[in-house]
Amino acid sequence: MRTALVAVPWVLAAAVAWGGGTTPEAPQPTPARNAIVFIGDGVDDHQLTIARNYLFGASGGFSFDAFPYRAAARVLTVLESDPGIPEYVGDSASGGTAIAAGVVTSRGRIATRAGDGRPVPTLLELASEAGKWTGIVTTSSITDATPASFVAHINRRYCQGPRDMRPTATDSRCLQALKANGGPGSIAEQIAASDVDLLLGGGYRHFDQPDESGVSVLSQARDAGYRVVRDAAGLSAAAGQPGKLLGLFGDDTLPVEWVGERDGRATSVAFEADGSVIDPASFGCVDNPEFGTRPTLEEMTAFALERLEQAPDGFVMMVESASIDKQAHQGRPCGQIGETRALDEAVRVATAFQARHTDTLVVVASDHGHAAQIIPWPSLFASRPDAQYPPGKVARVRTLEGGVMAVSYGTNATYQEEHTGTQVPVFARGPGAAGVHGLIQQADLFGIVQRALGLD
Amino acid sequence: MRTALVAVPWVLAAAVAWGGGTTPEAPQPTPARNAIVFIGDGVDDHQLTIARNYLFGASGGFSFDAFPYRAAARVLTVLESDPGIPEYVGDSASGGTAIAAGVVTSRGRIATRAGDGRPVPTLLELASEAGKWTGIVTTSSITDATPASFVAHINRRYCQGPRDMRPTATDSRCLQALKANGGPGSIAEQIAASDVDLLLGGGYRHFDQPDESGVSVLSQARDAGYRVVRDAAGLSAAAGQPGKLLGLFGDDTLPVEWVGERDGRATSVAFEADGSVIDPASFGCVDNPEFGTRPTLEEMTAFALERLEQAPDGFVMMVESASIDKQAHQGRPCGQIGETRALDEAVRVATAFQARHTDTLVVVASDHGHAAQIIPWPSLFASRPDAQYPPGKVARVRTLEGGVMAVSYGTNATYQEEHTGTQVPVFARGPGAAGVHGLIQQADLFGIVQRALGLD
Repeated sequence: MRTALVAVPWVLAAAVAWGGGTTPEAPQPTPARNAIVFIGDGVDDHQLTIARNYLFGASGGFSFDAFPYRAAARVLTVLESDPGIPEYVGDSASGGTAIAAGVVTSRGRIATRAGDGRPVPTLLELASEAGKWTGIVTTSSITDATPASFVAHINRRYCQGPRDMRPTATDSRCLQALKANGGPGSIAEQIAASDVDLLLGGGYRHFDQPDESGVSVLSQARDAGYRVVRDAAGLSAAAGQPGKLLGLFGDDTLPVEWVGERDGRATSVAFEADGSVIDPASFGCVDNPEFGTRPTLEEMTAFALERLEQAPDGFVMMVESASIDKQAHQGRPCGQIGETRALDEAVRVATAFQARHTDTLVVVASDHGHAAQIIPWPSLFASRPDAQYPPGKVARVRTLEGGVMAVSYGTNATYQEEHTGTQVPVFARGPGAAGVHGLIQQADLFGIVQRALGLD
Repeated sequence: MRTALVAVPWVLAAAVAWGGGTTPEAPQPTPARNAIVFIGDGVDDHQLTIARNYLFGASGGFSFDAFPYRAAARVLTVLESDPGIPEYVGDSASGGTAIAAGVVTSRGRIATRAGDGRPVPTLLELASEAGKWTGIVTTSSITDATPASFVAHINRRYCQGPRDMRPTATDSRCLQALKANGGPGSIAEQIAASDVDLLLGGGYRHFDQPDESGVSVLSQARDAGYRVVRDAAGLSAAAGQPGKLLGLFGDDTLPVEWVGERDGRATSVAFEADGSVIDPASFGCVDNPEFGTRPTLEEMTAFALERLEQAPDGFVMMVESASIDKQAHQGRPCGQIGETRALDEAVRVATAFQARHTDTLVVVASDHGHAAQIIPWPSLFASRPDAQYPPGKVARVRTLEGGVMAVSYGTNATYQEEHTGTQVPVFARGPGAAGVHGLIQQADLFGIVQRALGLD
């Protein structure tokens, strides 16, 4: 369901259901039969606050705010050139690899070790070996860094499809993964050859390409048993049909659910002739007309759970809301808010599933922090004689509770906003969830899920 | 103890003591006899990560990271002109008032309601009425917003001493608090007339002033039974002496413990003649020579606990590390890191006390978020042909584990950095601590402490 701007019933229902607090649940026995790992790409305390202020106002919260277990996860990354030296800001590749495979690696790497590049087994691979079904659901291309970290092993996240493997003037690092060079091929080729039972997301164009031998990755996937669907009707038709399923609902990243009114986004501050600051026009959030009739993250998650529920020995699924990050890079708060809401709606589906199947571990994690900050508008120092304003871009978002929230994007002056190095929140419920407590390292999540499932 | 830059034994000891995880403790019976409320001014997930990266590297944490209970607290503020309308960024006055008195108020207000200005009773006042001893320890002036929120009631945080009550060209709002106008006087005057048993911090100059009738606030304090001390020797001499104690160890905010090498702080990015970005010089953190021999926050906390331990019916104390905020305003990461360390050292003292007196609730809270963000350096987009750099100021801090952490301050282009509106972390242990769980509102902390002490 997608509806922006007005206080529609789901807002009220959510606020009531949330209830404003949690009580600890008793730790539940492991092993868990199923695990659902959500990743909000670029989620940190600040990005959550921005979305919650808009969606729920002062008196409500996300479904996962009420989960019985929460932790802060440290995001660790190392230099590729010297894996003994820490870097303090990660990306979706290093963060995804930490969660999927339990190792601290360098930025850009997909389930491989920094330095020597050795591949590391992922939760989905371990689950598959143990006879569980596996699934990936994302709003990005399924070849993008986060989903790739659960299914592929490669040195560069950018080697998404066969065409990306060609060397450029400055980068020939995909070459070593070419099949002709003894490698596993691009991420799309690795997905086509994988055991993952269900993948839903974007990225059609990375599959609609011939590999080195001239065979398209789509053909490879079909030959390996995947049924390929490209729209909501195709997805519906696949319901109840056995076999592996590859749903590609867009060429690359899927369109976001919400945009700002009048394309509202962060802009540089403008000034009156006397040098005083002009308030940027405020805006609310509205449905993105480009979203179309493709399935939402909530609908993909519901479909996936209905299918994976049939697994005789349980399943492991990763669900990503990818464009919280991508919209933050672009200074688009309504995009961030709508995609955080999409995450929450998908988590609600999983929580309802978990209520029926209490042997399911649900984790809501993040790969790294992001740029957006709520700032005072006007400035705390507005009474000074000189103009007081942020040096980067700012957006003023009208909230449903009648306030105006100013969001600053101040990490890059010339192009896209940067990731940040803050610790990120993690939420969990179900068997094994008690490990999500206190201060952990992001890579600990791998072991927490692995142990909960008895895959260690 | 103050020692910066080198990996001295306390770092190792702390890392060992912390141990990298926590286990939930069983909820302990209430009422608690004592409560110690720490406030890290301007602390949020990001500021904690900056300090932890420097102090402990990847494998250690703060004492409070291992507390059994943690929550995210929403920081709520409202417009003074219309208290029904939310603002999304607080200050130390509204945040201090939320924690001390349990109400959501407007920025700048000290334990009074937005709009009508009605005073609201504070935790320290309720404790005192119930026969408990009370204390305030801070690295700011004890008349500053956070400590004031626990002991005074006034419409403007800036009405710190008698001289501040005079109207200026643009602001006459302190006038209504003048005693001649039937008010309670400035914050310093209210402290002098208060029941608080012990106050340790800065702010001598706000007391060394005559009030409207020509009597200095210091004299008022002495007449009301306060022994006034001004240095470590005076504090030592007061040990074991009965009666109320006012320790003023500086004229205003106390000097911070650490500074950057060569006065290292965030600066605007500079460029080579060809337009490429010049890496700002990296620096470590060193002892601030201006700190002198005055007592540290850790030492003040230890002194206060030794004294309050004698209270026949228990005590309530607020301990603030104030300059995490003030140094963030100025773009000084080493100041932030050193004062976060000071907070941690003081919490360690309280945790040791709590181990001996398990009927003590310890809470570590924050009043609002702040500007500093860890960013990648060079930029994630450094391979682009145009220079990629943050629009605000940046500092590059050399960490003890051998990395370089870039910290961006991008919220104000012309003066001091701004507060931010992120949710903030809260940590708790001891009887009643189980209320610090999930997502709470900052003002809920008042009720959590009040109920834990049986003061409701």
